[in-house]
Amino acid sequence: MTALLTDHYELTMVNAALADGTAGRRCVFEVFARRLPTGRRYGVVAGVGRLVDRIAGFRFRPDEIAYLSGRRIVDADTARWLADYRFTGDIDGYAEGELFFPGSPILTVTGTFAECVVLETLILSVLNHDSAVAAAAARMVTAARGRGLIEMGARRTHEEAAVAAARAAYLAGFAYTSNLAAGARHGIPTAGTAAHAYTLLHDDEPAAFAAQVATLGSETTLLVDTYDITQGIRNAISVAGPGLRAIRIDSGDLSVLAHQSRELLDSLGAPDTKIIVSGDLDEYAIAALAAEPVDMYGAGTSVVTGSGAPTAGLVYKLVEVDGRPVVKRSENKATVGGRKAAVRRHKPTGTATEEIVVSRGVPDHQPNDRLLQRAHLVGGEPVGRPTLAESREHLRQCLISIPWEGLKLSAGDPAVPVTAITAQ
Amino acid sequence: MTALLTDHYELTMVNAALADGTAGRRCVFEVFARRLPTGRRYGVVAGVGRLVDRIAGFRFRPDEIAYLSGRRIVDADTARWLADYRFTGDIDGYAEGELFFPGSPILTVTGTFAECVVLETLILSVLNHDSAVAAAAARMVTAARGRGLIEMGARRTHEEAAVAAARAAYLAGFAYTSNLAAGARHGIPTAGTAAHAYTLLHDDEPAAFAAQVATLGSETTLLVDTYDITQGIRNAISVAGPGLRAIRIDSGDLSVLAHQSRELLDSLGAPDTKIIVSGDLDEYAIAALAAEPVDMYGAGTSVVTGSGAPTAGLVYKLVEVDGRPVVKRSENKATVGGRKAAVRRHKPTGTATEEIVVSRGVPDHQPNDRLLQRAHLVGGEPVGRPTLAESREHLRQCLISIPWEGLKLSAGDPAVPVTAITAQ
Repeated sequence: MTALLTDHYELTMVNAALADGTAGRRCVFEVFARRLPTGRRYGVVAGVGRLVDRIAGFRFRPDEIAYLSGRRIVDADTARWLADYRFTGDIDGYAEGELFFPGSPILTVTGTFAECVVLETLILSVLNHDSAVAAAAARMVTAARGRGLIEMGARRTHEEAAVAAARAAYLAGFAYTSNLAAGARHGIPTAGTAAHAYTLLHDDEPAAFAAQVATLGSETTLLVDTYDITQGIRNAISVAGPGLRAIRIDSGDLSVLAHQSRELLDSLGAPDTKIIVSGDLDEYAIAALAAEPVDMYGAGTSVVTGSGAPTAGLVYKLVEVDGRPVVKRSENKATVGGRKAAVRRHKPTGTATEEIVVSRGVPDHQPNDRLLQRAHLVGGEPVGRPTLAESREHLRQCLISIPWEGLKLSAGDPAVPVTAITAQ
Repeated sequence: MTALLTDHYELTMVNAALADGTAGRRCVFEVFARRLPTGRRYGVVAGVGRLVDRIAGFRFRPDEIAYLSGRRIVDADTARWLADYRFTGDIDGYAEGELFFPGSPILTVTGTFAECVVLETLILSVLNHDSAVAAAAARMVTAARGRGLIEMGARRTHEEAAVAAARAAYLAGFAYTSNLAAGARHGIPTAGTAAHAYTLLHDDEPAAFAAQVATLGSETTLLVDTYDITQGIRNAISVAGPGLRAIRIDSGDLSVLAHQSRELLDSLGAPDTKIIVSGDLDEYAIAALAAEPVDMYGAGTSVVTGSGAPTAGLVYKLVEVDGRPVVKRSENKATVGGRKAAVRRHKPTGTATEEIVVSRGVPDHQPNDRLLQRAHLVGGEPVGRPTLAESREHLRQCLISIPWEGLKLSAGDPAVPVTAITAQ
């Protein structure tokens, strides 16, 4: 963990603000998205749990301060301030797993200007990445219609981003990850058996399958498409018996191959052997396989890269200084200053109808309203931390609550409209 | 650094291969791309320097082995093997900063099956991420036509991916990064002055500018688009004088605003004050500003997310076992087994004409050929490590060497065709 996961300009601003006496002004920063990625109907708040840990541990080490001083990025007064830095303000916002829409005040950071401004990069990095992955993953979960999903994209993204991506995909409802660090750090179930290399290593496919079954038992998954899939399935059942847990197909026309494989497995007396498919699957490819006899999907590249939207478009803006609302004015971005309060309004049936965001006030109370903001840190200390499993269930409930159109994969309006109100 | 940045199936394969005696077979794995991302004419090898460090330090810690054993991912024999693990094989491949094309054997990993297979995820994570960023960044450098570029995308990607992205962008020719960790770890020049929040913090814009100039001097960049750009520029010169180094514009029609700003700065007697523009710039937007009076570009989201291609499409395939070429056969992927040797052929003028990739043999020697592979690790030890500055210059020379069509931003064939030859 390093406090240098920070942009140069944040420390330049701290330096100048310490010098002119404005560094201690009480500020409110807000994280929000001006728009959703093209084609999306909702965003998913993800990364909050990770972020809270990183903010609580955000310290400038002596060697880091020496670097900053040596490069004259900060002066001596600022170096001393950095040495004492810990965030002592308050952060509240949407729960991890909550949905968001354009204008939703996802995170509100309150404290002195200096202590808040240095967190901009860390906050946006974590939330932009994890929320992008979670939103893509949630669409895949919808497309999979109850069938299980394995996240196997670690090889397609930065090695540490891979761990965060696995966490975000699990949050969104994926059942497993291939990534062991994600398993160890976040308690996510991991899965994996063998690659084509394992079959190629052996003298022939039956020898490879026999060795795998000898070690892992028939409760394993045999990858059957290294040479010829039909023969691969015959070899698999011949070696493992009809109690084989699953086969995996990673290439070819998955729709046709799933059908042929199911028929073949059934004819070999293995009706309970599952079929797992993988290979460049995204939410559209998964949806297209809905009618095929597939039991589980493996998704890699598309989930870890946000399926076309690799960043969530979240920004971190100063909205209030010493109780005065502030807003950048040079173009019409419809941004409103001041601290916001947000509720989501529902029908008695539980379907969300509207999100009300009030600047410098509180929404009028109506039955079936749900407050969207909760405390994440108070006086710099983490509070009320949900488990990843709880956040996962929260997202599942949120997705049930939006109008059914919101779950369509096609482009459309945000699933829930946001009404912005300025109280004064 | 953790050896758990690894996929579950790698350890399952090691476990099964140790049990059946195949784990020690001499293997050759190869990293290559089947195709370039849509619209691209070349790829850029990036991340090699980072990767070599991570492979040399790849160890399974006791707590990691305890996790793997406790979850029954590995048995006792495999746990002992992991405890002793260090890579003792050889890795050679293309230099960092080298160009690649479909079928280029970018990296060749030689050793026992078990010691090589556990590196798949780490190798692909590092190379896929860094190469994706470098390729996008290189196109932006071309589009900028000699004007400087600042990478400022840390807020749009995972916090650690941001550091690697800054490194890859610098490799590709960017002049600065906003990311301080990239500066501290990799010696990359950092840049940054102030965000809109800094102006909003103050009672008015002149007060903000005055405080910034008091601290940083007139050798700074003032962000002039918080309220009104024309007034912002007047305030900037009024406060800093005509010796102000630069203004930055982060919103609006940058083409029009650059012109107006240049005229205004000139009329205010500040012809040497530079104009820096930023705000959702990608290679196409940068190219569209070529005729405008812009001095430097800031690029964020598009560079760190690979400008539409967030992963480089590199795969890690077993190509040889105990001297025998192997290849997956279930579909026509035109993949050739066996260890490869590669040269790039050039005209006497230095223009690259062809890349020759020979499986299980060596290319015939011709004048102006350049060998593309060099040793990265020998017996597990890093060798011949270029500096980041050397790799940066290597890429610059490579881009000069390709036919001019290869630098076009439009879609087209790979800049240099690859001829695959099987020697036997």
